[in-house]
Amino acid sequence: MSDPFFHPVSGFDLPRFAGVPSFMRLPHVPLDHPRLSEVQLGLVGVPWDSGTTNRPGPRHGPRQLRDASTMIRAQHGVTGLRPFEMVNCADLGDVGPNPADIPDSMARITAFFDDLRGHGITPLTAGGDHLTSLPVLRALAKDAPLGMVHFDSHTDLFHSYFGGTMYTHGTPFRRAVEEGLLDPARVVQIGIRGTAYDSEDRDFARSVGIRVIPIEEFHARGTADVMAEARQIVGDAPTYVSYDIDFVDPAFAPGTGTPEVGGPNSHQALEVVRALHGLNIAGADLVEVSPPFDPGGGTAFLGVSIMFELLCVMAPAIAGAGPAAS
Amino acid sequence: MSDPFFHPVSGFDLPRFAGVPSFMRLPHVPLDHPRLSEVQLGLVGVPWDSGTTNRPGPRHGPRQLRDASTMIRAQHGVTGLRPFEMVNCADLGDVGPNPADIPDSMARITAFFDDLRGHGITPLTAGGDHLTSLPVLRALAKDAPLGMVHFDSHTDLFHSYFGGTMYTHGTPFRRAVEEGLLDPARVVQIGIRGTAYDSEDRDFARSVGIRVIPIEEFHARGTADVMAEARQIVGDAPTYVSYDIDFVDPAFAPGTGTPEVGGPNSHQALEVVRALHGLNIAGADLVEVSPPFDPGGGTAFLGVSIMFELLCVMAPAIAGAGPAAS
Amino acid sequence: MSDPFFHPVSGFDLPRFAGVPSFMRLPHVPLDHPRLSEVQLGLVGVPWDSGTTNRPGPRHGPRQLRDASTMIRAQHGVTGLRPFEMVNCADLGDVGPNPADIPDSMARITAFFDDLRGHGITPLTAGGDHLTSLPVLRALAKDAPLGMVHFDSHTDLFHSYFGGTMYTHGTPFRRAVEEGLLDPARVVQIGIRGTAYDSEDRDFARSVGIRVIPIEEFHARGTADVMAEARQIVGDAPTYVSYDIDFVDPAFAPGTGTPEVGGPNSHQALEVVRALHGLNIAGADLVEVSPPFDPGGGTAFLGVSIMFELLCVMAPAIAGAGPAAS
Amino acid sequence: MSDPFFHPVSGFDLPRFAGVPSFMRLPHVPLDHPRLSEVQLGLVGVPWDSGTTNRPGPRHGPRQLRDASTMIRAQHGVTGLRPFEMVNCADLGDVGPNPADIPDSMARITAFFDDLRGHGITPLTAGGDHLTSLPVLRALAKDAPLGMVHFDSHTDLFHSYFGGTMYTHGTPFRRAVEEGLLDPARVVQIGIRGTAYDSEDRDFARSVGIRVIPIEEFHARGTADVMAEARQIVGDAPTYVSYDIDFVDPAFAPGTGTPEVGGPNSHQALEVVRALHGLNIAGADLVEVSPPFDPGGGTAFLGVSIMFELLCVMAPAIAGAGPAAS
Amino acid sequence: MSDPFFHPVSGFDLPRFAGVPSFMRLPHVPLDHPRLSEVQLGLVGVPWDSGTTNRPGPRHGPRQLRDASTMIRAQHGVTGLRPFEMVNCADLGDVGPNPADIPDSMARITAFFDDLRGHGITPLTAGGDHLTSLPVLRALAKDAPLGMVHFDSHTDLFHSYFGGTMYTHGTPFRRAVEEGLLDPARVVQIGIRGTAYDSEDRDFARSVGIRVIPIEEFHARGTADVMAEARQIVGDAPTYVSYDIDFVDPAFAPGTGTPEVGGPNSHQALEVVRALHGLNIAGADLVEVSPPFDPGGGTAFLGVSIMFELLCVMAPAIAGAGPAAS
Amino acid sequence: MSDPFFHPVSGFDLPRFAGVPSFMRLPHVPLDHPRLSEVQLGLVGVPWDSGTTNRPGPRHGPRQLRDASTMIRAQHGVTGLRPFEMVNCADLGDVGPNPADIPDSMARITAFFDDLRGHGITPLTAGGDHLTSLPVLRALAKDAPLGMVHFDSHTDLFHSYFGGTMYTHGTPFRRAVEEGLLDPARVVQIGIRGTAYDSEDRDFARSVGIRVIPIEEFHARGTADVMAEARQIVGDAPTYVSYDIDFVDPAFAPGTGTPEVGGPNSHQALEVVRALHGLNIAGADLVEVSPPFDPGGGTAFLGVSIMFELLCVMAPAIAGAGPAAS
Repeated sequence: MSDPFFHPVSGFDLPRFAGVPSFMRLPHVPLDHPRLSEVQLGLVGVPWDSGTTNRPGPRHGPRQLRDASTMIRAQHGVTGLRPFEMVNCADLGDVGPNPADIPDSMARITAFFDDLRGHGITPLTAGGDHLTSLPVLRALAKDAPLGMVHFDSHTDLFHSYFGGTMYTHGTPFRRAVEEGLLDPARVVQIGIRGTAYDSEDRDFARSVGIRVIPIEEFHARGTADVMAEARQIVGDAPTYVSYDIDFVDPAFAPGTGTPEVGGPNSHQALEVVRALHGLNIAGADLVEVSPPFDPGGGTAFLGVSIMFELLCVMAPAIAGAGPAAS
Repeated sequence: MSDPFFHPVSGFDLPRFAGVPSFMRLPHVPLDHPRLSEVQLGLVGVPWDSGTTNRPGPRHGPRQLRDASTMIRAQHGVTGLRPFEMVNCADLGDVGPNPADIPDSMARITAFFDDLRGHGITPLTAGGDHLTSLPVLRALAKDAPLGMVHFDSHTDLFHSYFGGTMYTHGTPFRRAVEEGLLDPARVVQIGIRGTAYDSEDRDFARSVGIRVIPIEEFHARGTADVMAEARQIVGDAPTYVSYDIDFVDPAFAPGTGTPEVGGPNSHQALEVVRALHGLNIAGADLVEVSPPFDPGGGTAFLGVSIMFELLCVMAPAIAGAGPAAS
Repeated sequence: MSDPFFHPVSGFDLPRFAGVPSFMRLPHVPLDHPRLSEVQLGLVGVPWDSGTTNRPGPRHGPRQLRDASTMIRAQHGVTGLRPFEMVNCADLGDVGPNPADIPDSMARITAFFDDLRGHGITPLTAGGDHLTSLPVLRALAKDAPLGMVHFDSHTDLFHSYFGGTMYTHGTPFRRAVEEGLLDPARVVQIGIRGTAYDSEDRDFARSVGIRVIPIEEFHARGTADVMAEARQIVGDAPTYVSYDIDFVDPAFAPGTGTPEVGGPNSHQALEVVRALHGLNIAGADLVEVSPPFDPGGGTAFLGVSIMFELLCVMAPAIAGAGPAAS
Repeated sequence: MSDPFFHPVSGFDLPRFAGVPSFMRLPHVPLDHPRLSEVQLGLVGVPWDSGTTNRPGPRHGPRQLRDASTMIRAQHGVTGLRPFEMVNCADLGDVGPNPADIPDSMARITAFFDDLRGHGITPLTAGGDHLTSLPVLRALAKDAPLGMVHFDSHTDLFHSYFGGTMYTHGTPFRRAVEEGLLDPARVVQIGIRGTAYDSEDRDFARSVGIRVIPIEEFHARGTADVMAEARQIVGDAPTYVSYDIDFVDPAFAPGTGTPEVGGPNSHQALEVVRALHGLNIAGADLVEVSPPFDPGGGTAFLGVSIMFELLCVMAPAIAGAGPAAS
Repeated sequence: MSDPFFHPVSGFDLPRFAGVPSFMRLPHVPLDHPRLSEVQLGLVGVPWDSGTTNRPGPRHGPRQLRDASTMIRAQHGVTGLRPFEMVNCADLGDVGPNPADIPDSMARITAFFDDLRGHGITPLTAGGDHLTSLPVLRALAKDAPLGMVHFDSHTDLFHSYFGGTMYTHGTPFRRAVEEGLLDPARVVQIGIRGTAYDSEDRDFARSVGIRVIPIEEFHARGTADVMAEARQIVGDAPTYVSYDIDFVDPAFAPGTGTPEVGGPNSHQALEVVRALHGLNIAGADLVEVSPPFDPGGGTAFLGVSIMFELLCVMAPAIAGAGPAAS
Repeated sequence: MSDPFFHPVSGFDLPRFAGVPSFMRLPHVPLDHPRLSEVQLGLVGVPWDSGTTNRPGPRHGPRQLRDASTMIRAQHGVTGLRPFEMVNCADLGDVGPNPADIPDSMARITAFFDDLRGHGITPLTAGGDHLTSLPVLRALAKDAPLGMVHFDSHTDLFHSYFGGTMYTHGTPFRRAVEEGLLDPARVVQIGIRGTAYDSEDRDFARSVGIRVIPIEEFHARGTADVMAEARQIVGDAPTYVSYDIDFVDPAFAPGTGTPEVGGPNSHQALEVVRALHGLNIAGADLVEVSPPFDPGGGTAFLGVSIMFELLCVMAPAIAGAGPAAS
């Protein structure tokens, strides 16, 4: 049972439009907060988009996601689960990037997540573009490579862009495999679609044993079947979940920089997360929400709905694993 | 056969962008109009959102719905039905609420619908937020409780908000059951989803016998099966239809105050109404269209498309019941 | 194998947001360009909406489509096809219409496509409202009537508007049949829906043998079954493909003048095109994209995604037919 | 003193967001209304933009202007004038144009205003693009040429477009002079600016004696001085006032098709109208409000604020001239 | 010299798009914070719009203002003043209103500001609609009536709306005078304009001695002259400053519910505040920022720029009056 | 007299909404074009925003500016100047930056402008964020430092950001002075305003002799007086003109990343450029137009209106200097 200090403010008490907006209306517990070590599941913003090759904007994602998250309530609509009562959750604030220096930003992000790891906090990250996942994995996979369930319309496995640039939002998982942060045999990428430059990324996937499930296969087989295979691929060992909002069709998630049409709807967008229950999740992220391309904010609301689903599969496992460090 | 006075203006004669916009381009017949008593099916606006607990805006709904309704033509695309030729339809104008006084507004709304009832006019109402349904039911269910088919992502069955406030758009049907306006055994709520404060509303539903069909069940069983059950629940007795636009997924209906992702698409949004044919419909409403959250106006167009479907299931029954009072 | 001059610029070399935007980042080859006669498949803009009866805007379509098309890459995501390597493709620029004179504009359009025909170039046209198809067909079907696969929510088969006006975007295919440009027995219209003025258009279709597949039938039978029938109807003879973006549900394609809810999603929007592979396509168009009703531009991106699918079914057939005139 | 039937609905009685929107919340009195002949000043919509050479949209102007006009109250803020109590005002509805036929539309418009003239009603017209003024003048200046005060950033005096097209929104006043509808010696054009094709229009103005006051002169001399000259030019004889919303700087009026920067602000936009008090105004129009280019609607609100100013200079003169025909 | 704990975060250290957004990036010090009593100048949000008679939205104002305020830096651009170094400033969070109960909300607001007063904190409030000022004044003027400098396009002095409703955003200062919270002889209202219902409000102003400066006079005399008179009217005694964003022309501040054209520009909007230096300011508010009517957020940025100007005239006086209670 | 090949397409011939959009509808002459060496004045896009410290977007500027520039015609409205007939102008396309590598991008930009310089082409650049000016100056000022007239609300003279980052859009002119590209005694910065981090930038300006004219001084003295001083400061020697769109008030130019309220209006925005006639302009830029923050595009249209004014002061000087290299 979690400590009431870590419970979100209810809309029955304070209207949802009121108050300084933190993720899910949880207490804001920055790294220097006296109760940091009690946190078990930490929501973190990484406002950063320096790896973006086309339309920037995800640096503004965490703020819009916090705003939209004030519409999330305490109890899961289908399962009745109340995650905030199971583990101590908190908004740990944002990692401060250097928007004009990619290596400096990556070092800052890794340091932040190293710190969380030192406190035994499982992170749920709100990006930021997809390059964000790389410095996060450098912290989380320091000791051993992780498996990964990756929802996206792109593989993000390219070698380089623009004549040799190695760090963009199209390359993070190529780097992560090269650096030994991911175990390719335990990586599955779901929803891949859209036009392609060429097959270099998929050739790499094949060569290292990453399983790619294109959208055509996803639509043909259905959520349940695909997710059963995904669970089998990652198994019981520690697994990272990386969710690019462009996995979802742009009618449901227009606010992103590299949309691809023909994707899943919002119901499927939630179902695939719910199917991860019971996995050993070492951390998760939701990336590529780009407010400038969605003034209505629907993408951000879908984004936090997905984050709540992630939280609902992460919290029981953490709760089962015993209390946080104190 | 209806009187030509009550036929809508055709886009073949006057372009759809021209003319003072009334609902469906029908004649504007306010309560003091000499031909009021000939109206059989009256379209009414209730521009009101004082019951809104988060994002206001539905007070602007009726005007945007009227504007969008100029794109509706005379004949149903699937069934070929021409409802305006079956019964005398008219735009009865708006109820004038008091935006700074909830009890006063409710009294004004009930009085308006009492008046319609006195003229034997079946109302099709464009809200306004969902609290609108309560004062409408106070007029329509004066003699006997009604059944209800309720499309929504929320039950609107909560006891109170903000420390005891009894009248909000989250409580109308709790009040309606308490006031004997609805027969809970003949109420079905379809599409319920999203995060929840707690289970107090569903516990109440269970305790009085209201049938709640969550979205997961809706998606699993399909429209036909769910609607067959709904028809059975309400039976042949007089029934109210209340349609909250947030029943539909926010990709199709972003213009609403409390969206919940993972809902039906626009095709299902129409199908569920078409499945109501032949029921004994005492009145219907379409609520929670909020223009400020949808500048494109797609939500309003979906809203009037749903209103036309409602009209197409209401008109044959009214026509079968004989001529209007005169 | 196509000439490298006709290959699109890659986003790996020049970022997608850079450069003067041509269709698919292909070379701009206007009619007076020295290499025009080498072009096999020409992308043409017809910025024109004088036939629009309600909300204008498609005159701005080609420019927004060019802009969005910079996000299309060289290789098909599902089939791996690389159409730009199969045939010489180019952006042939826009036909210059006379926005205040319909007959003059039609003559200019027909003259432009006559010219293309003289060079043996197969056109893929970006409209423009649907009246565009008529002057295009006057050029392409000069010798013999064509078959047509027509995706739309409207039949565009009406006789006239506004008391006898014969040329609007609701009449092009009535005129085309009357003028002998289409063989009605080889015409199929898919996705028809929405409210109707009356049945005059469908009565005409029936009387001349045009096959209309309403959306209810489309949803009930599924893409594969419907498209198999469509292929049978048009057979192996030369066929035109006309794709009105309002075929797709407005949640996926809000930027259009006459939306109708309840349509296909974006995945189906692509699938139906892919099912045309191997047909003898004499030309194709994508019409009714209207930027003023979609500031986000999602409709245009879906539009160019459809154009790329069209290109991928057209290119292999053209490549198989041998080299372009030179 | 006007008849109370012709008074607008007050926002103290019915909230401004409620009710079917007519111009200024006046009674809707179409041409077949029994009390038409009592109207002295008639507000008319001409939803038409077939003369537009670049970005269409003004066909949607009258509807958005009606909506915005619900925010106008009964009394002038500076002068305290209450125009609706001085003369019988009404919303006469829209002229129904033929959007696909320019000559037909012009005939319809002229017929409508002929009718008004027959009833002795002074018209205040809401366009529509600027070609609207020509068919209106054909009715109003049937007997004798009028003077004109013309606010605009363009002269609209060009000979033709697109190789000889004579009727566009860039040519109405050239035609009006040629047709003897305007007395060029009594025409003044104020606010002219922006880049120019060439000097053909200004050369024509000079040749016939039209006075053009460019924006640089307007800014240098100030409103009072410029308007004194304008009053002198038109004198006491019957004068038409034509107000193109693009006279105002696009920061204040973005919703228009051909904006030119560097224009007057909203305070000056009202002042110039107020300076027309006492003139013999035979009719007035406010044109080129284009909703698709201004979702916020600020342009429409400025437009109706200008229309109210026009009404306040027209009403006293009409009232002084005695009662309406009856 | 202020305590560094109360200094805002610099954009040189943490990019402006990062971090949980508090007003001006100040520390969030809610009423139960241990350092509350050290605060001298408190920024407070009142997210409330139940008094709005037309277009709601200001309940969302404080959140958008906080977001926009991350672009405000530490030093005044003209004067070089660094207010955050002069006094301890903090974001005190939002008052939680009851959106469905006006009297309850007013009681909550008054209680909150009573609490601030007990701690000797001078409040700078971000509304909320203009009814907000009434419950704030009930706390601040408990002992003696205040003077007021009021920037607005409306007097907000009406007696009642909708048949006797006494508490709306059009009545707060009528009530405040009646309740003895304002000394009418020391009240000046600047910028009044727009159409009026009637003269009832101005008659009241005259009868009690409130000075109304209409916009025409403002434009004619200029900022310096008008503000000199305003300073004289309020004198040296405690004065409240109430700033309705609709004082500014809607081209500069579109995001508000009741705009009136013809107002001051943004430069004048700041100048009038700067002219208040040295006055004895007991509190101030900035109200009626309504995000739904300004997706671009320019209104909110102007709003926080005005709040910073207010802060810069309030801080020196507070600093001169000695340290905060401790 | 210029060569007709280099004349823009007229809207009388091809409607303004038609055609592949190049700057001002000029011919597209990339660096490998056979007629490059005939170009005298080259319009160049630099789609780049890697130096942006807060809200990105200017990488999309050149494309939106090209689109908006189709509304610019051939002749200056006030002076009657026809610049395209005076010198050979062309759209030279975009410099391709590396969005994930600042030094690489700067090298590419400098190389591009070195190339132009080699051909004797005077550049008019459309950014891009303000860091763009630095690599451009590295090419243009290779031989001798330039003077500069700089319109902006910020000095862009800071030493560094984020703990030592030297290249951001807040530092270009500090670097340019340090690198000897600018002669500080011949630099004037006009319009500086908004809140400041501190005075470090202005202290630097003072120490090296750069003249800063804050907005308060600009408003007090007026355009003519300020520009006379500016002309004196730069004198007759070669001068660069750098125009940040945020010089203009955000009501007129909302589409920019770091707006500051209280700035000049659009009339003044043009006047200040016109006052530069006759100066020895070695190159000019218009930077910081950010489309994601201005969906309406008004900022881009103001931007190209300013570019046309720049062109009109540059062309006569170039024409006077004799023909281009050939």
